[in-house]
Amino acid sequence: MKLVPVLIASVLAATAAQAADPLPSWNDGAAKQSIVAFVGKVTAEGTPDFVPPAERIATFDNDGTLWAEQPMYFQLLFALDQVRLLASQHPEWRDQEPYASLLKGDVKGALAGGEKSLAEIMMATHAGTTTEEFAGRVSGWIAAAKHPKTGKLYTAMVYQPMLELLAYLRANGFKNFVVSGGGIEFMRPWAEAVYGIPPEQVIGSSIKTKFEMRGGTPVLLRLPELNFFDDKEGKPVGIQQHIGRRPVAAFGNSDGDLQMLQWTAAGSGPRLCLYVRHDDAAREWAYDRESSVGRLDKGLDEAKARGWTVVSMKGDWKAIYPEP
Amino acid sequence: MKLVPVLIASVLAATAAQAADPLPSWNDGAAKQSIVAFVGKVTAEGTPDFVPPAERIATFDNDGTLWAEQPMYFQLLFALDQVRLLASQHPEWRDQEPYASLLKGDVKGALAGGEKSLAEIMMATHAGTTTEEFAGRVSGWIAAAKHPKTGKLYTAMVYQPMLELLAYLRANGFKNFVVSGGGIEFMRPWAEAVYGIPPEQVIGSSIKTKFEMRGGTPVLLRLPELNFFDDKEGKPVGIQQHIGRRPVAAFGNSDGDLQMLQWTAAGSGPRLCLYVRHDDAAREWAYDRESSVGRLDKGLDEAKARGWTVVSMKGDWKAIYPEP
Repeated sequence: MKLVPVLIASVLAATAAQAADPLPSWNDGAAKQSIVAFVGKVTAEGTPDFVPPAERIATFDNDGTLWAEQPMYFQLLFALDQVRLLASQHPEWRDQEPYASLLKGDVKGALAGGEKSLAEIMMATHAGTTTEEFAGRVSGWIAAAKHPKTGKLYTAMVYQPMLELLAYLRANGFKNFVVSGGGIEFMRPWAEAVYGIPPEQVIGSSIKTKFEMRGGTPVLLRLPELNFFDDKEGKPVGIQQHIGRRPVAAFGNSDGDLQMLQWTAAGSGPRLCLYVRHDDAAREWAYDRESSVGRLDKGLDEAKARGWTVVSMKGDWKAIYPEP
Repeated sequence: MKLVPVLIASVLAATAAQAADPLPSWNDGAAKQSIVAFVGKVTAEGTPDFVPPAERIATFDNDGTLWAEQPMYFQLLFALDQVRLLASQHPEWRDQEPYASLLKGDVKGALAGGEKSLAEIMMATHAGTTTEEFAGRVSGWIAAAKHPKTGKLYTAMVYQPMLELLAYLRANGFKNFVVSGGGIEFMRPWAEAVYGIPPEQVIGSSIKTKFEMRGGTPVLLRLPELNFFDDKEGKPVGIQQHIGRRPVAAFGNSDGDLQMLQWTAAGSGPRLCLYVRHDDAAREWAYDRESSVGRLDKGLDEAKARGWTVVSMKGDWKAIYPEP
C-alpha cells in the first residue's frame, strides 16, 4: 500500500468522523454518552421510548449553564454599568448609597447593603423605561461591554459545548427554552442570535409592566415592582405558565435549578437531567458547595442519588468558549 | 365543441379554483381581500413589506373570535357543570350561596351576587387541584358536554372560517397564538387538537400555582388567587410577557381586544387588525354595543376610524361552524 493514499484515506476518515459528531467539543465519556443515548431513544420511531417532536421540550438554565456567571451574574455587571451611564441624569446619586460608593468605584461598598442595595440598583436600572427603550439599552451594552477578567464580550463567554448541545437537540426536533433566574427582557435581545432561541422561548424573572397611551401611541412601561421570580420553586411554575407541558430534558448548574430537574425527572418515559459542574479553575472557575453565586450543593447530592448526568467542565469539555 | 368535455373542464376548473382558495368559507369581499392582500405583502421576498418568518406573529382572542360565547362564556358553563359534579364532595354547598341556588337549577339566582359570586364559583372549581388533575377535568368536560342551545359539543362551535384563517396563516409561516381573557389552563388541553395551537402558544388569565413535594413526587398546586388577568390592558402585557415581540396581525371581537389591536397596529410595517362582528342572529347570535358578553363598542368606533377590517359574520362567512 502506498503511503500517500493511506494518509489521505485516514485524513478523510477523521474528517468524516468529525463531521458526523454533533458534539465535537465533548470528550468521549459518560456525560456525552448519556446525551447521545437519550436523543437516540426519544427519536427512535416505533419504540416505547419514542417522544413525538411536539413533546420534545428542553429547558436550559442560563447563568452558569449556557454562559459564565463569575465573578458575579453578568446582569448585575450590566446594572452597575448602567448606574455609571445614567449618573449624569441623577445628580442626587452622588450623595446617596448605594450609588455614591459605586460611582467612586467601590463596588464592594455599594453591595455591602446586601439584598436591599441590590434590589435598589436593579430597579433603578431596569424600571422606569418602556420595554423598547430597555431592549435598546441591553442591546447597546451587550454589543460593547467587556468582562473584567477575560476582556471578552459577554456573548463570547457562552459555553461552546452547550452551543453544540442546543444545535444537536434542535436538529433532533427539540424546542429549546431558556429558563433562567435572570431577567426575561435582559436575555431576549440577544438569545436568538447567540443561542438560536427566539424571544417566545425565553422564560425568566420579570418586573411588572403597564400598558399606557403616550400621545396616541401605546407603550409598555416597566414598573419598579417584582412580577415573577423564576428561580428554585419558581422554575417549574414558570415552565407551566409559559410552556404548559413538562420538559423531557433539563439542564442546570446550581441548586436554583434543582426543582426544574425534579419536575422534569418526575414525568413518565425517558428523561435527561444534567448538571454542569464548574471544576475548571484553569480555563474557567471552580466552585460548588460553598459558592454564593451558582451554589451546587443539594443538587449535587440529588444528582448522585438519582443517577443524573454530571458534566465535569474540566474532564468532559475540550473547549470552554467558542474560538475567537 | 362537445358538451361533456366542456362540462368536465368546467368542473375541473371550479375544483382547482376551490382547491387553490385557502379560505373557502369566506365570501369574496373586502374582509377576505384584506386578509389575502396582507399575507401576500408580508411574504413577498425582496419587497419593503416583507416580514421574516420568525416575526410573523399572529394573536387571536378566543371567546367570540375563535369559538362562540353565548349565552355566557363556555368556561363559566364548565364551572357551573363542575359545581354540580363536585357537589357530593361539598355537602355544605346545599345551604350556601351561590351554590345552593345553582344546585336547585337557578343559575340566574346563583349569579345574582355579581362579580363576587362569580369569583367564588370560579375559584371553587378551578383551584385546589394539581395542574394535571385540572387538565383531566377540562378534558373530560370538553369531550362530553353539550351546549344548552345548539346541543353541539363546544369544540364543534368553533368558527369554520377562522379555522381556515389559522391554517392559511400557518401555511404562510405565521406562528399563531391564542391571547384570551379565559383561563390559560382551560384552553390548553384542547387548543392543539382543535386550533392546531400548541400549549406554549396559548396565553390567558391564570391563578397562582405552587411547587410542592407530595410523598417525593413534585406537583404544581393551583391556588385560589388570581395571578394574571389577560384582558383589555392586560393583553399587550401578556403578549410581551409570553412572546416578547409585537404581533403583526391580531384578531378579536370585543372591546376586551382593543388594546391588543392598538398594540399590534402601532408597530412599523404592514399590519392586519381584524374584528369579528356578531351580526348573524339566524345562524349564530347578534350583539355588539350593548352586550354584557363580548361588548363591541369603542372597538367598533376605532376600527372604523383606523380602517381596520370588520368581518360581518352574516355577510362575509359562508358557514359558521364546521360541517358535522
